Amino acid sequence: MIGTSDLDPSQAEQNPFNSIHIGEILCVGTELLLGQIINTNAAWLARQLTLLGVSSYCQTVVGDNPDRVRLAMETAASRSDLIVVTGGLGPTADDLTMAIAAQVAGQKLVEHPDSRAAIADFFHRLGRLSITENNWKQAQMPEKARVMPNHNGTAPGAILEFFYEDKPKVMILLPGPPSEMTLMFQESAAPYLEMRTATRFRHHFVRLIGIGESAAETLLKDLIDGQHNPTLAPYASEGEVMFRVTQLVHDEREPDNTAGLLAEIQKRVGEYIYEIGPRSMPAVVKDLLSEQQKTISFAESCTAGLVVATFGEIPGVSSVFKGSVVAYANDVKVNQLGVPADILAMYGAVSEETAIAMARGCRDVMKTDLAVSVTGIAGPDGGTDEKPVGLVYLAVASERGVEVRRMQIPGNRARVRKVSALNAFDLARRDLLR
Amino acid sequence: MIGTSDLDPSQAEQNPFNSIHIGEILCVGTELLLGQIINTNAAWLARQLTLLGVSSYCQTVVGDNPDRVRLAMETAASRSDLIVVTGGLGPTADDLTMAIAAQVAGQKLVEHPDSRAAIADFFHRLGRLSITENNWKQAQMPEKARVMPNHNGTAPGAILEFFYEDKPKVMILLPGPPSEMTLMFQESAAPYLEMRTATRFRHHFVRLIGIGESAAETLLKDLIDGQHNPTLAPYASEGEVMFRVTQLVHDEREPDNTAGLLAEIQKRVGEYIYEIGPRSMPAVVKDLLSEQQKTISFAESCTAGLVVATFGEIPGVSSVFKGSVVAYANDVKVNQLGVPADILAMYGAVSEETAIAMARGCRDVMKTDLAVSVTGIAGPDGGTDEKPVGLVYLAVASERGVEVRRMQIPGNRARVRKVSALNAFDLARRDLLR
Repeated sequence: MIGTSDLDPSQAEQNPFNSIHIGEILCVGTELLLGQIINTNAAWLARQLTLLGVSSYCQTVVGDNPDRVRLAMETAASRSDLIVVTGGLGPTADDLTMAIAAQVAGQKLVEHPDSRAAIADFFHRLGRLSITENNWKQAQMPEKARVMPNHNGTAPGAILEFFYEDKPKVMILLPGPPSEMTLMFQESAAPYLEMRTATRFRHHFVRLIGIGESAAETLLKDLIDGQHNPTLAPYASEGEVMFRVTQLVHDEREPDNTAGLLAEIQKRVGEYIYEIGPRSMPAVVKDLLSEQQKTISFAESCTAGLVVATFGEIPGVSSVFKGSVVAYANDVKVNQLGVPADILAMYGAVSEETAIAMARGCRDVMKTDLAVSVTGIAGPDGGTDEKPVGLVYLAVASERGVEVRRMQIPGNRARVRKVSALNAFDLARRDLLR
Repeated sequence: MIGTSDLDPSQAEQNPFNSIHIGEILCVGTELLLGQIINTNAAWLARQLTLLGVSSYCQTVVGDNPDRVRLAMETAASRSDLIVVTGGLGPTADDLTMAIAAQVAGQKLVEHPDSRAAIADFFHRLGRLSITENNWKQAQMPEKARVMPNHNGTAPGAILEFFYEDKPKVMILLPGPPSEMTLMFQESAAPYLEMRTATRFRHHFVRLIGIGESAAETLLKDLIDGQHNPTLAPYASEGEVMFRVTQLVHDEREPDNTAGLLAEIQKRVGEYIYEIGPRSMPAVVKDLLSEQQKTISFAESCTAGLVVATFGEIPGVSSVFKGSVVAYANDVKVNQLGVPADILAMYGAVSEETAIAMARGCRDVMKTDLAVSVTGIAGPDGGTDEKPVGLVYLAVASERGVEVRRMQIPGNRARVRKVSALNAFDLARRDLLR
């Protein structure tokens, strides 16, 4: 998309801009400060920078205010090699990012003919014949910019190379709407940065269940503290325990050196690991079912559809998933799942016996290889001394028989439901691996 | 939750901390810098600060690095009255936020007995008998802190009042996991801030269904542009159309002056408004059912449990909700919902006829007053020229008969499911209002 002919890697030593190690992300937009939109751009860009081997120490959000945008750009330039800016490139009067970036980089704004033509073409394709004056503002670019075309909108982006406090700096300006930003980054900014950076990170994610975060960390503490390349670090993820193994490489051809560390982790906490890789627990269950050509169904009470809704998020799940019953009321447990009324009367809806009967009944009526049941008290009301809020029974029924799990889950309604759902999938996984 | 007895409003003038106007949000977590998680905390907190009348000029993210956390806290204290910090309160060695905050506030860390007892209790309820040493670290609090209990986890939070460069500053420290952070903010931080802030925004949310955002905005444009206090603004919310009417008040006793504007909005787009207030569409349906002492059930295909899971999030829903069937496979539609096999054969699973049969069958087997069905093609696969991805049929069955709705929903799988679920509740709402 943009010329990279001057980015000959053999010239790397000579070009002062070929030494990007530290980068930071600056998002411009009052709607972010007001919390009206969630800053997905920062997370997406941070992942891209990490993959490109750029380390990041800071992310900043400021509103559409010229003084604060300038101060944020100058602060970033004083401490980082690379500043990736999103937002404020639009046509309205408060979109000032490009003009301020030009000032910080010490460049004049000039009209960029290709961008003017692209804006005219964009409106033509939309069928709009009149283009207001503020739209042409988007064709004003810093004089030495590498202009990045916008194939999902009107605002072009720019890459600026300049010296700040006598040090080489790169500023990449991207539009705010995610569909425009991500496409422009992939088409134009990533190829540029690949030529400008020397290092990369390779990640492996280790996912555990059945052990708390601090207990797992205690078992791995010396590896977390003592490793340099690869490194091991805990990875925060609500309701789940995850660790990240990261290798820093200087050349794509360097071999993966994480096997030894992964084997040591496996040795210490292997019984709790359900995945070393990108897959979530429901995705692991879905893949096991596909491999074994088996089907599953769910019978939920306290999770009230969270298990099935989570499973339903996975595209292509219809080949292994037939259906599900949410049985909140006892008569639905009896009529739809065939739970014997005397089991409910004798042991109560929240009991090992009811969980087993729900799983067995669900497997029968849905005619699936596996069925998983959840019954419990999600709260906030309904708990007793004997059966407090957070008490959950789960069961799995399959040709191998029935397994049941009793849990006492701390936290509010949302957390009880989430941890229950994760354990429902884990029961299915353990059955499929038996 | 925390003592507010010293927050007597009549003492407001005398207390130097009662003048919070400018606040900023600082999120601590290497996983945010690496883009491994999306910073939903910043958006959520930004909305809360806006509601409390606190203006915000900046948001910052830094990693779990003591020097950079300290620098970020000092920078924030030098320019804002209030710093809301999330993350880095966990039990692990790299969770340093509380210790650094104590240094910035010039306070010693001391053990907080109540927090130690709460941590012991949390693990006791989990059934874990051994508590590792790093868990007790979370009971170390700055000596003058107002400690905020954590009812969804182990790390307590803290409110620190201190002087920085001779000016009064408030720092609020919250845990990073969203379920812990939001509950602690609502229970403890919001009541504190309500006493400390002088201005307030009163918001009324106007929620619409059945009209697009830009069409609604066109009908309300002069009110959006021309109003000062109260103001009218669109409020971004995925899959929904919402507007916010905001009144700025300096004293709780000032009367609400939004009635005239709300009446004008009602006049122009009233037929699309389902709520002026805080309630989501499922909450409106739940309240209508409670008022009319009616029960509901759901029969879902393409939404795969999203309708029931959304409904299940509402506490106390068990009085109106009996159960639900997710019928992905056709034989589940036949066996569990009594959909005639010849209807499926003649019209297909995605058809008006099947939607009606699912709703009627669900009402019969679940023995509820209402039943709502959804069947469609959520994608990404499975669409045809005749029945493209995004085609969805919904039906409601009640004593009043059956209503059916056909929709062609643009967007990806997640959006098709979300808009379908919203319309499923709307069908129930319209039936209950007939």
